[in-house]
Amino acid sequence: MKDYFPNVEKIGFEGPDSDNPLAFRYYNPEELIGGKKAGEQLRFAVAYWHTFCGEGRDMFGEPFFERSWNRYADPYDRSIAKADAAFEFMSKLGVSYFCAHDRDLAPELDTLRQTNALMDRVIPHIQALMKETGIKLLWGTANLFSSPKYLHGAATSPDAKVFAYAAGQVKKALEVTLALGGEGYVFWGGREGYETLLNTDMKRELDHLAAFYRIILDYAREIRFEGQFLIEPKPKEPTKHQYDFDAAHSLAFLQRYGLEPYFKFNIEANHATLAGHTFQHELRYSRMVGKLGSVDANMGDLLLGWDTDHFPTNMYDTMLAMYEILLNGGLAPGGLNFDAHVRRGSYEKKDLFLSHIAAMDAFAIGLKAAKMMIEHPFLERGIQERYVSFDSGLGAEIEKGPVDIHSLESAIIDTPIPLPASGRQEWLENYLNRLLLSVVR
Amino acid sequence: MKDYFPNVEKIGFEGPDSDNPLAFRYYNPEELIGGKKAGEQLRFAVAYWHTFCGEGRDMFGEPFFERSWNRYADPYDRSIAKADAAFEFMSKLGVSYFCAHDRDLAPELDTLRQTNALMDRVIPHIQALMKETGIKLLWGTANLFSSPKYLHGAATSPDAKVFAYAAGQVKKALEVTLALGGEGYVFWGGREGYETLLNTDMKRELDHLAAFYRIILDYAREIRFEGQFLIEPKPKEPTKHQYDFDAAHSLAFLQRYGLEPYFKFNIEANHATLAGHTFQHELRYSRMVGKLGSVDANMGDLLLGWDTDHFPTNMYDTMLAMYEILLNGGLAPGGLNFDAHVRRGSYEKKDLFLSHIAAMDAFAIGLKAAKMMIEHPFLERGIQERYVSFDSGLGAEIEKGPVDIHSLESAIIDTPIPLPASGRQEWLENYLNRLLLSVVR
Amino acid sequence: MKDYFPNVEKIGFEGPDSDNPLAFRYYNPEELIGGKKAGEQLRFAVAYWHTFCGEGRDMFGEPFFERSWNRYADPYDRSIAKADAAFEFMSKLGVSYFCAHDRDLAPELDTLRQTNALMDRVIPHIQALMKETGIKLLWGTANLFSSPKYLHGAATSPDAKVFAYAAGQVKKALEVTLALGGEGYVFWGGREGYETLLNTDMKRELDHLAAFYRIILDYAREIRFEGQFLIEPKPKEPTKHQYDFDAAHSLAFLQRYGLEPYFKFNIEANHATLAGHTFQHELRYSRMVGKLGSVDANMGDLLLGWDTDHFPTNMYDTMLAMYEILLNGGLAPGGLNFDAHVRRGSYEKKDLFLSHIAAMDAFAIGLKAAKMMIEHPFLERGIQERYVSFDSGLGAEIEKGPVDIHSLESAIIDTPIPLPASGRQEWLENYLNRLLLSVVR
Amino acid sequence: MKDYFPNVEKIGFEGPDSDNPLAFRYYNPEELIGGKKAGEQLRFAVAYWHTFCGEGRDMFGEPFFERSWNRYADPYDRSIAKADAAFEFMSKLGVSYFCAHDRDLAPELDTLRQTNALMDRVIPHIQALMKETGIKLLWGTANLFSSPKYLHGAATSPDAKVFAYAAGQVKKALEVTLALGGEGYVFWGGREGYETLLNTDMKRELDHLAAFYRIILDYAREIRFEGQFLIEPKPKEPTKHQYDFDAAHSLAFLQRYGLEPYFKFNIEANHATLAGHTFQHELRYSRMVGKLGSVDANMGDLLLGWDTDHFPTNMYDTMLAMYEILLNGGLAPGGLNFDAHVRRGSYEKKDLFLSHIAAMDAFAIGLKAAKMMIEHPFLERGIQERYVSFDSGLGAEIEKGPVDIHSLESAIIDTPIPLPASGRQEWLENYLNRLLLSVVR
Repeated sequence: MKDYFPNVEKIGFEGPDSDNPLAFRYYNPEELIGGKKAGEQLRFAVAYWHTFCGEGRDMFGEPFFERSWNRYADPYDRSIAKADAAFEFMSKLGVSYFCAHDRDLAPELDTLRQTNALMDRVIPHIQALMKETGIKLLWGTANLFSSPKYLHGAATSPDAKVFAYAAGQVKKALEVTLALGGEGYVFWGGREGYETLLNTDMKRELDHLAAFYRIILDYAREIRFEGQFLIEPKPKEPTKHQYDFDAAHSLAFLQRYGLEPYFKFNIEANHATLAGHTFQHELRYSRMVGKLGSVDANMGDLLLGWDTDHFPTNMYDTMLAMYEILLNGGLAPGGLNFDAHVRRGSYEKKDLFLSHIAAMDAFAIGLKAAKMMIEHPFLERGIQERYVSFDSGLGAEIEKGPVDIHSLESAIIDTPIPLPASGRQEWLENYLNRLLLSVVR
Repeated sequence: MKDYFPNVEKIGFEGPDSDNPLAFRYYNPEELIGGKKAGEQLRFAVAYWHTFCGEGRDMFGEPFFERSWNRYADPYDRSIAKADAAFEFMSKLGVSYFCAHDRDLAPELDTLRQTNALMDRVIPHIQALMKETGIKLLWGTANLFSSPKYLHGAATSPDAKVFAYAAGQVKKALEVTLALGGEGYVFWGGREGYETLLNTDMKRELDHLAAFYRIILDYAREIRFEGQFLIEPKPKEPTKHQYDFDAAHSLAFLQRYGLEPYFKFNIEANHATLAGHTFQHELRYSRMVGKLGSVDANMGDLLLGWDTDHFPTNMYDTMLAMYEILLNGGLAPGGLNFDAHVRRGSYEKKDLFLSHIAAMDAFAIGLKAAKMMIEHPFLERGIQERYVSFDSGLGAEIEKGPVDIHSLESAIIDTPIPLPASGRQEWLENYLNRLLLSVVR
Repeated sequence: MKDYFPNVEKIGFEGPDSDNPLAFRYYNPEELIGGKKAGEQLRFAVAYWHTFCGEGRDMFGEPFFERSWNRYADPYDRSIAKADAAFEFMSKLGVSYFCAHDRDLAPELDTLRQTNALMDRVIPHIQALMKETGIKLLWGTANLFSSPKYLHGAATSPDAKVFAYAAGQVKKALEVTLALGGEGYVFWGGREGYETLLNTDMKRELDHLAAFYRIILDYAREIRFEGQFLIEPKPKEPTKHQYDFDAAHSLAFLQRYGLEPYFKFNIEANHATLAGHTFQHELRYSRMVGKLGSVDANMGDLLLGWDTDHFPTNMYDTMLAMYEILLNGGLAPGGLNFDAHVRRGSYEKKDLFLSHIAAMDAFAIGLKAAKMMIEHPFLERGIQERYVSFDSGLGAEIEKGPVDIHSLESAIIDTPIPLPASGRQEWLENYLNRLLLSVVR
Repeated sequence: MKDYFPNVEKIGFEGPDSDNPLAFRYYNPEELIGGKKAGEQLRFAVAYWHTFCGEGRDMFGEPFFERSWNRYADPYDRSIAKADAAFEFMSKLGVSYFCAHDRDLAPELDTLRQTNALMDRVIPHIQALMKETGIKLLWGTANLFSSPKYLHGAATSPDAKVFAYAAGQVKKALEVTLALGGEGYVFWGGREGYETLLNTDMKRELDHLAAFYRIILDYAREIRFEGQFLIEPKPKEPTKHQYDFDAAHSLAFLQRYGLEPYFKFNIEANHATLAGHTFQHELRYSRMVGKLGSVDANMGDLLLGWDTDHFPTNMYDTMLAMYEILLNGGLAPGGLNFDAHVRRGSYEKKDLFLSHIAAMDAFAIGLKAAKMMIEHPFLERGIQERYVSFDSGLGAEIEKGPVDIHSLESAIIDTPIPLPASGRQEWLENYLNRLLLSVVR
C-alpha cells in the first residue's frame, strides 16, 4: 500500500473531551447501543467519486485539489493509484464500505469494449485491496450522465443507440458489482428527465425507462446477481425535471409498470430537500411503503437552490434519520453512504478526514439520540394514544371496514364534535433538544 | 333577480381594439376555433368561494370588501342573497359553470342535522336560478378544512369522530351535487397531511384516507351519482406536508390502495408551482396517465412562497395549458374553474368583472395559440422525428420487447456513438413567441 | 389579578432531568454565565399580539382558540381582561418584558379621537399591572397594516389622507410608549411596498416614507421620547415587495435620506430567511454597521414560503444568534421578543407556556454555547490567524491606505501565489456540535 | 477572416412571416421606433465567455461542444482563433458590441508578467478585428473567480497576497479595456463573500473591498480611463453569500464607504431572481437611485435554484425591462449584454445563432411594447392620478416639508378615512397582454 496520507494514523475514538482533530469524539464502533455495536448499525460507506475523484471544480472555478493519485497520465496507472489511495484512506478512517460508479474505478475509452477491457485489468487490484482491508462494496452503479452521449438522457434518450449503449454499460457495471461482491446496485437517473416539454414525448420516454429496467432485471437473473436494486430519486439538477422526482414519483412509476417488487429506494438528504421535503419525510415515506433500502447521507443548504452535497453534521437531521432507520429495522444490506464532498475551500487532504469524522460523529450522536426517542416512553406512546379512538368502537370498525356511511353519519349528526387534543409540537421539539443534550451525559 | 351589479351590462365581445374595460377583446364564445366554438372548448367556471365569499382578508389584514349580498345576519337570507348575486354576476359575465363547496352555499350550524336542513332550504332557490340562467354546476366539493374540528385533518384526523363527521358531511355534499346536476365531485385535502412527523402515524392516516374514499364511492353507487371524482393535489399550505403533494403522489396513493380506476385529477396551476413543477408539467403528467380530469385555472407568483391564487393572465401559461388540454381531447366533463381571487387592492365590485375578463381573454388567446402549436408542422413533427430511431430496427425491438441485452451490447460495443441531435430549445421558445404574436393577425 | 391560568404555577428551573413539562430545564435566570445573570443577558419579551390576541386563524381555517379573556363584547372590558391575562401569564412565565402594537392594547373605533380616548382609559390599568408585576415594555409599535385604509400602504400609501392618519396614529402610539416607559419603538412596514410596479411610483413612495420618519422624529423630540427607534426589515408578506426588504435595504434607505443616525434594526429570524439570509447573517450585518438594536426571536420553516413565526427551538440558531448578540455587547435597551405563535394544532392554553418554555430553554442553551464559542480558543483565534497577512507588511499597508497599485503589482507579478489555507468549514461545524453537547455536562 | 461558420450568411430581417430560422422576425436595426433606430436603442452585446469559451460542461457533465477555434494547443494560437471566430460570428449576427473578461481574451500563464505578455500579443489582433468590423467593446472585466488562488475571494481574500494579485490583474484588465476603447468596466465579485460566518471577519473583508476599489479608481485616473465603472450584484453562487447581494446591498456598501459617486450597476435578470426580486424591480431600483448603468440580459428558471443564464425569450420580461430602460433615457454608454449560454442540449454551432436571434427578437418586441406602455395614455397617467392627493393641499405640504404632526393629526382625527381607489392590477395585466399582441399588427 502506498502512503498517500503519510501524516495520518488510524482514526481512533478518544471521547468527547479530546482536542485531537483526527479522532472520533462520539463514534465508537465497538460501543454497544441497544445491545448492538454502533459500527454494525452505522453501515458507513465512503463515496469513491467525491472523495477520490473530486478536484474542486465548481461552476465558476477551476479544479485544483492536489490529489497525488491523480497525477498519472496512463488511465490504468491512475485507476490503480486512486484505488490504493482510496483503500488507504478508508482503512485509516475505519469505514467498512465504499460505493462507486463504474467510471470512478476506470475511465471511459474510445469504445465500450476498450473501456471494459481496462476495467477488467483494474478489478483484480481492487479485489486484492478489498481482501487485504476487509472493506466491502455497499453498492455499484453506472455513470450514465457525464458522457456527452447522454446529453438528452440514457434510458430515456430519444436516440435508440444511446439506449443500447447505456444497457451495455450497465451490463458491465452489474458484472463488476457482482465480481466485487456488491450488496446492491443503484440507478440514479440524473439525465432521465426533460429540459422542455416542447420537444419531449414523456410517455414514450417512461416506456423506454421501464423497458430498460426489465432488460437489466433479466440480465441480473442470468448472471445470478442477487443484490438489491435501488432507485435514487432526485427532482432536478442537472436536468430541469427528473422523472424520479422523489420517492412517491418513483413508486408511482414502478407501480404503473409492474416493477414494484424489484426495487427499493436509495434516499439522499439533499435530494429530499430539493424536492421540497425534509430528509425524514422521504425516509418515512419509503419506510412506510416498504422501500427504504439505503441512504445517501449528506446535507444541503436550504437557502441555496442546488445540490450542495455537504457532509452531514446537523444533529437534528442525523437523529431523525436514525429514528426512521431504526424503526425500519436498520438498512442492511443498504447503508449510509457519504455522498458528500468537502467544500471547495476545504481543499487539503486532511479535510477529507476531518469531514468524514464530523459526519460520522454526527451520525453516532444521531443513533444514540434516536435510540432514546424510541425507548423513551413519551414519543411512541404519545403517537399511539393520539390515534386511540381507532383502536376500538367506531374507529376500529372504520379500520376493519367496510363500514356503512349511514352508521358514521348517525354517530355524529346530532352531536357537536369535541376538538381533538393539541398536537403539542413545540413541546415535542423541546423534547428533542433534551434528548440530544443527553447523548453524552 | 336582484340588481347587485347595477352598472354592468352583459359583457360582450368587442375585439382587440376596444377600449371598453367591460368587454372581451379576445374571447368570443361563438368564434369557431378548429371547427368548434370557443365557448364550448373553454368550459369556464366561476369559483363561488373566492368571488362571492371572499372578503379581502389576508394574514395581516382585516376583511373589508363591501359585498352587499353578505350584509344579512340570518344565514338563510345571506345564502339566498349570495346566490342571487352569483347568478347575476355569472349571467352578465357569460360563464356557463360554477364550482362550490357545501359551505359556500350554506353555512355550518351547530349540528350537521341543522346544517343539512338549512342546505335543504337553500338548494331549491339555487336550482331555480340554475334553471333560469342555464348555468350548471361543474363540480361540487365539501369544505373539510375551515372548521376547527378539522385542525388535525378530516379523513386523516387522529380522531375517529372527526372522520365520521367528515364522512357525514361529504355524504350530504354528494347529495347536493347530485341534486344540482354536478358533473363532478372534487376532493381537496387541505388538512390531510401532517405538521410534524413526531406525532404522526403516516401509514395509519393513509389507510384511513383510503377507507374514507371507499366509503364515499360505495355511497355514490348507492345514490347513483355518476359524476367524475377528482383529487386535487397540493403540496402544502395550510398543512406543512399534504399527502396529495402532486399528481404523482396522488397516483402512487391510488395505485397502492386499488383506487386508481375511480379518480381523475383536478390540476391547479398554483399548486403545481408550489410543488416545484410547471403548470404544464402537472397537466402533461396527468394526461399521460389518463387522469387529466379538470383544471383550477389560476396563477401563482414564483417569487412568493404561498398560494396567491391570482387570476391567470400569463399567455405562456394559458397557451401551454390549452396545448395539453387539446391533446387530452378537451376536459369535459371537467372544465376551467377560476380558483382565483382578486388582489386585496382590487377590492371594488368592478374588479370582479375585470379580473375574470382578463383571465378569459388570456385563455382565449391560449386556445388560439395552442391550436396553432398543434396544427403548425414544426412542433409535433419535430417531436416525432426526435424519436425516429425507435420507429424501426433496434429501437422498435426495444419498444416491442423483450429484447436481449446481448444484442444491445453487440450493437454498440465497438462503435463510437454519434451525438443525438440538438434539442433546439431556444429556437422552440422563439417559435412560441411567434405563435403568440400571430394570434390576432 | 384574575385567574386565567388556574392550573399553572410560576414556572421554575428544575434542571435537565426534570420530567415536569411546566418547568425550565436549561433556563435559570439566576445562573451566572460569564459573570452575568442569564436572566439579564436574555432580555426575553412576550409578544402581546400572538400570545394574547391570536385566535388560531390561518388562510384556510377559522379562529377557534378559547381565550376566555376575549369573550367580552365591550372593547374596554376586552382590553382590560386581555391585559389581566397577559400580566398573569408573563408573571407566571417569569418574563420581564412585553412588546405590543397600539391595537393589541385597545382596538380601533370609528375615529382616531374615539380610538385614542379608549386607549386613554386602558393605559392606567396597564400601568398598574406593570407596577404590580415589575414587567416592562421593551418596545411599542403601531399597527399600520390590518385596517383596510392601509391596503396600499400607510406612509407609502398613494393617498395623502392615509399618510396623515398613519402619522396621527403613530403620534398616539409614541405617547403611549412613553407613558408606559417603553425602551424602544419599532417600525415594521408590512404594507410599505408594492404589489405591482405597473401602478407604483417607487421614488415618490420612498420620499414619503422618509418624510414620515422625519415627522415622527420631530415629534419624539417634542415629547422627549428618548427610546431607541428601530426598523424591522421583512422582504415580503403581506406585500409582494416590502421596501425594508432586509437590513442592507433598510440601511441604504436610511443613508440616502440622511436618517441613518436615528435608527437601529429589529432583526427577525423568519424575516431573514424569507429574504434568503440566515438569521446569523442579518444579525452579523446589523452588528457590523452598528445597527443591531433588538431581535424578534422566532423560527421559520425553510421548506415553507411564508412567515410561520414558530417559537424558536433550533439550538444551532439560538447559539449563533447569541454569539452575535454577545459580540454586540448584548442587546440592551433591546431584547429578545418572541414574535412567535403556537401552531394552530397547539391550541390549548397550556401550549402557550410549553412553547415559551421551549424557546427560553433553547436560548439559554444558545447563550451557554455562544459563551463557549467566544471563550474557547479555537474559533476567535482561528479567525484572527486567518487574516494575519493583513496585520503587517503589505497587508497592513493596504488596510492603512492609500497604497499604490504599482507596489501591489510588483509584489506579485513574478511570483506564483501560494493557495490560502483551508477554510476548515466541516471541522468548524463539528466543533459547534461538540460545544452544544458540552452545554449541560 | 477564417470561416468558422461557413453555412451562415449575415442574419437579415425578414419579418414576422419568415420561416427562415436564420433570420430576424421582429428585430430590424433600421426600424424607427419613437424616431430612433431600433439598433441604436438596443445596444446588444455578445458575451465572449459563454459564446466563444463555453464548452457544454455542467456539474454532472463533461465538456463536449465542438468549437473548432478551441482546438489549438498553443495559448496564443487559441486566443487568435477564438477572436477570429468571435468577430465572424458577431459580424454575421449584426451585433455592435461585445463584453469580455481578461481571461476570455488570453489565458493565464504561470506568472502575471507572462500572462500580461501574452495579452499584449493578442490585443493588436483584436484591435484589428474591431477596426475591420466596427464592433466595439461595451465593457471589460477581470476574471477574479476561476483561478484557485481566489478560492476564498479576491479583494476579500483573507490573504493579502491574493488581494495584491487581484489588484495587479485588474490593473492590466483596465489597461486592456482602455486600449480596446471599452465604454465601461464591470466588477462582478463572484467570490467576494463568505461560505460560513464561523471563519469570516465580514467587516474586515468589506474594508478591504473598499480599499480595493479606491486603489483601482486612483489608477483609472492615472491612466485616464474615463469609462463607467459598474458593479454587478448577485446574491450567491458560487459563494454562499455574496456581498453584492442585490442593488440595494451594493448601494448601502458604496454609501458607507463614500464610493457612491464612482459606480453604477450592471443588472442581470437571473441575479435579480436569485435574490428574490423581479428583473424589473432591480432595474427600477437602480434607475430610481440613479445607478442603472448596464444590463446583463438573460433569463432564469424560477423553479431552478441556480444561475441558468438562459437566453432571454420571455416577452413580458423584455417589455418590462425596456420600459425601465426607456424611462432611464436608455442605457448608453451601457447596453444589453447577453450573459447567456445555450442549453447543453443546444450544442450545435447553429444554436449559437438561433439563441441570439431568439433573444434579439424578444427584445425588439419588448422595445416596441414598452414604447406603447409609455405612449399609451392609460399607464403613466394612471400612476400620476393615483398619487394626485400629493399634488396639492396637505399632500403637497408633506412632500415639501417640514410638516407639523399636529396639523396632520387634526386633519384626520375626527374623520373616517375613505378607502383609496382600487389598484386595478388584474386590469393592468390584461392591458399588458393587449399591448404585446399589438406589437406586430
